[in-house]
Amino acid sequence: MIQKLSADERALQLRQLNGWQSVAERDAIERSLEFADFNEAFGFMSRVAIKAQEMDHHPEWFNVYNKVRITLSTHEVNGVTVRDVELARFIDSIARQA
Amino acid sequence: MIQKLSADERALQLRQLNGWQSVAERDAIERSLEFADFNEAFGFMSRVAIKAQEMDHHPEWFNVYNKVRITLSTHEVNGVTVRDVELARFIDSIARQA
Repeated sequence: MIQKLSADERALQLRQLNGWQSVAERDAIERSLEFADFNEAFGFMSRVAIKAQEMDHHPEWFNVYNKVRITLSTHEVNGVTVRDVELARFIDSIARQA
Repeated sequence: MIQKLSADERALQLRQLNGWQSVAERDAIERSLEFADFNEAFGFMSRVAIKAQEMDHHPEWFNVYNKVRITLSTHEVNGVTVRDVELARFIDSIARQA
């Protein structure tokens, strides 16, 4: 059974990620991204969607035009786990290419 | 210059759409959809994305796993116009096929 990250582990992981922060009201992390336009934003989302499906671990996300806000949390434990960190790292890696 | 729908026009259009309602806090319409799983939800979003790009009229939307909530409004006039109705109609037409 997957477990929540401890407070220390999570703080360490957040420092190694790019632009992610803890969500105030719930046990989750989020990042906002901005692209040149909708085409680029949705292209990015498509890459994340394929990765998410492969991991069987899906984001919560909001998009309007060139902006994407992503929230990650692991449903089974209602908190942040290594799965979220792995997906966040993937997001960071392709966001850098944008 | 595109114009907001009048209250009467909008009420008429909403009756002809499927599951759309006015948003309380702002001049927009929204619909929530549920699919079998993430694959189906994101496939639907991809079809809407291509249509939106073709129309140069984009949705605001939120997705988590098999759920999609879409808000439509026309930025230039900060309200609901025929463009929103056209995109809503397209969404309804492909949602029926899901």
